Amino acid sequence: MSAKSEAVDLIVTNARELATATGAAARGGADLGALRVIAGGALAVKAEKIVGVGPEAEIRARFTAGETLDARGGTIVPGFVDAHTHPVFDGTREEEFEMRTRGATYIEIAAAGGGILSSVRGVREASREVLLANLLLRLDRFLELGTTTIEAKSGYGLTTEDEIKSLEVIAAARARHAVEIVPTFLGAHDYPLEFRDRKSLYVDLVVEEMLPRVASAGLAEYCDVFTEGHVFGIEDSRRILRRANELGLRPRLHADQLSQLGGAQLAAEVGAASADHLEFVDDPGLDALRAAGVVPILCPVVPLYLRIEREAPGRRMIDRGLCVALSTDFNPGSCYLQSLPTAMAWAALRYRMSAAETLTAATLNAAASLGRADRLGTLEVGKQADFVCLDVPNHRHLVYEQGRNAVLAVVKKGRVVRRRS
Amino acid sequence: MSAKSEAVDLIVTNARELATATGAAARGGADLGALRVIAGGALAVKAEKIVGVGPEAEIRARFTAGETLDARGGTIVPGFVDAHTHPVFDGTREEEFEMRTRGATYIEIAAAGGGILSSVRGVREASREVLLANLLLRLDRFLELGTTTIEAKSGYGLTTEDEIKSLEVIAAARARHAVEIVPTFLGAHDYPLEFRDRKSLYVDLVVEEMLPRVASAGLAEYCDVFTEGHVFGIEDSRRILRRANELGLRPRLHADQLSQLGGAQLAAEVGAASADHLEFVDDPGLDALRAAGVVPILCPVVPLYLRIEREAPGRRMIDRGLCVALSTDFNPGSCYLQSLPTAMAWAALRYRMSAAETLTAATLNAAASLGRADRLGTLEVGKQADFVCLDVPNHRHLVYEQGRNAVLAVVKKGRVVRRRS
Repeated sequence: MSAKSEAVDLIVTNARELATATGAAARGGADLGALRVIAGGALAVKAEKIVGVGPEAEIRARFTAGETLDARGGTIVPGFVDAHTHPVFDGTREEEFEMRTRGATYIEIAAAGGGILSSVRGVREASREVLLANLLLRLDRFLELGTTTIEAKSGYGLTTEDEIKSLEVIAAARARHAVEIVPTFLGAHDYPLEFRDRKSLYVDLVVEEMLPRVASAGLAEYCDVFTEGHVFGIEDSRRILRRANELGLRPRLHADQLSQLGGAQLAAEVGAASADHLEFVDDPGLDALRAAGVVPILCPVVPLYLRIEREAPGRRMIDRGLCVALSTDFNPGSCYLQSLPTAMAWAALRYRMSAAETLTAATLNAAASLGRADRLGTLEVGKQADFVCLDVPNHRHLVYEQGRNAVLAVVKKGRVVRRRS
Repeated sequence: MSAKSEAVDLIVTNARELATATGAAARGGADLGALRVIAGGALAVKAEKIVGVGPEAEIRARFTAGETLDARGGTIVPGFVDAHTHPVFDGTREEEFEMRTRGATYIEIAAAGGGILSSVRGVREASREVLLANLLLRLDRFLELGTTTIEAKSGYGLTTEDEIKSLEVIAAARARHAVEIVPTFLGAHDYPLEFRDRKSLYVDLVVEEMLPRVASAGLAEYCDVFTEGHVFGIEDSRRILRRANELGLRPRLHADQLSQLGGAQLAAEVGAASADHLEFVDDPGLDALRAAGVVPILCPVVPLYLRIEREAPGRRMIDRGLCVALSTDFNPGSCYLQSLPTAMAWAALRYRMSAAETLTAATLNAAASLGRADRLGTLEVGKQADFVCLDVPNHRHLVYEQGRNAVLAVVKKGRVVRRRS
């Protein structure tokens, strides 16, 4: 230990590999998937930020640590960023899962009063205390699985009061939990039963009452719409998202998931931060996303979970220069999944993405879609110290192995918040 | 606590649900998938066996426990039984996984000297100590994931000495680890490089040298063959398996995985305990399996992992009266997966199996394929006390939720061998 070494809060040692996206981070943007991989890499952390990244000998020579975290011969990667989740709900829907495995479709279940509307009943009936306790438990599970930042949508309230209740629960959880939460208003998730015969009036309610109240209370950064034939068409989606833009909520869209409706083009037109799902996107849609800098967020487990054969053209997107992000789409109906490594493994298998591309997609590119690539998503000097130690020998093993949580330790804002015994 | 209550070693309390296959257990057989589900169910254990199963009030009234295990409002199910694994190897194959996700096929990778033969190099070069340490770590991981019994195959040695070395490592692990291991000799897994130009001589070696030595040393209960066009055809497989039968090793087969070769019919003909994979089985093959009482063991993640579209006809099998078992097929090439709940979830999604059918398949039916259904695979009085407490509200949630290990505690032979803090 040199006399000239700098005192820092934490050094992470004994890793076989450190792997991180880089490059585009300096400009706060996303990247195609080139990694910096350091054999025997180590990290130094001070005042919540990364102050050193490099081979362990170099880090040890430059810094003196207050605390040391032993990576036990594993791999260090950035904390995972899940940019599309629906975590505010009460009650699970395993009966519906079983209906679907026996042949019922998503739209059939929805038409029968199940689907999203069953979660709407749950949120309306649940107290804030119950919703908050549920959410905090789910945040614990995200953290155990290595996810340090999530986007969280409302969308199971579908009245002004219940949407605001959901967003206030998100705000309460933000104040209490290590996981960083980016709130999104999704009042246009579906039409509530009481508006089924007067859908345009529900769009009026979203535009004229919900959005202004959510914006004035500062309860959301983004506004999402489920743009799909059976819910919000292109015209209604455009109206909602333009109003959101005027009020300072940047759009994100559920786009082209179940049919080719032109959601990707709309996302480009309204300057959306992301266009999500995209199983049915066409090539003009891809070109529009790329030209407008919209991040495509793919959810590879969802079509498998819904038994829909059609898959998003993940490989084709990357080959055309689109910086893809990956997400779980955690929700109680179409994907009860909180593990981003599981989504990464299926993205490798189904989209033919490399392990490096999946890691970039689940960290830097997801952070970029949330406007946080300047601060999160890579292991570089100056960035927030959010990272995960995994008991795998290299980053490629993370998608090669299925069905096990490889997380040894999680560091958020420089603090060790989870450690496996 | 009544004065007349019986003193037992362990009672498990505070479960929301206890779920188990039953029925066929009395005759040591497999079952189609009807469960006994007890809301608020509890268990009593004495001298390694289950002595009481029923509603908690009844169990508390009848028994006085030395130790109590709190199921924390979760679900109790039998310990999982994984009846098809290849856990004796050194070195992982994540590079090959990445080759495959970019388009290379299983057979192309094998032809290029990768695939099984790269693990053969690993086993031949590794010491017994290294192989045993690897295996013990993998057994820890099986146990963490709720698997209390596995079948374990040799098959990466492919010389008499290296096959015996692999089986001796399995025997050493059996003596030291809580997971029960059923050893299977799989000398006919592939042709080693040195026999590629004289394949019939390798079959001679298996039949005339390996099998007798394995049998006389008592190192295996079963003999498996990879019956497939590019490895062991029907004639060679029949010769090996008949010899195995003569020597007291009951056959199990890798059958009809990559082509419709008639492996199922051969399994029936030789009285195999199981026919495994079966993606290409035809209806006469299914009828033959059913008539001969061969258990079909399906590995639903393998075709997804290999990017093969063809799936085993799981639903069709059950509808025709076949008692399907499920397995991970844990191995370093075609499926690096140790979690049976993950395999169960994919069986529900891909084969349209109910949650109850997947639970029966991963417990009782797998035990039946290993000749242990009289002792393992259900929660019934008189059976060995192997069970798992899961932090899910019911057994259906187990396949509904993806990507998280729900195991709270594992009990093997009446002893709590894992407990999550």
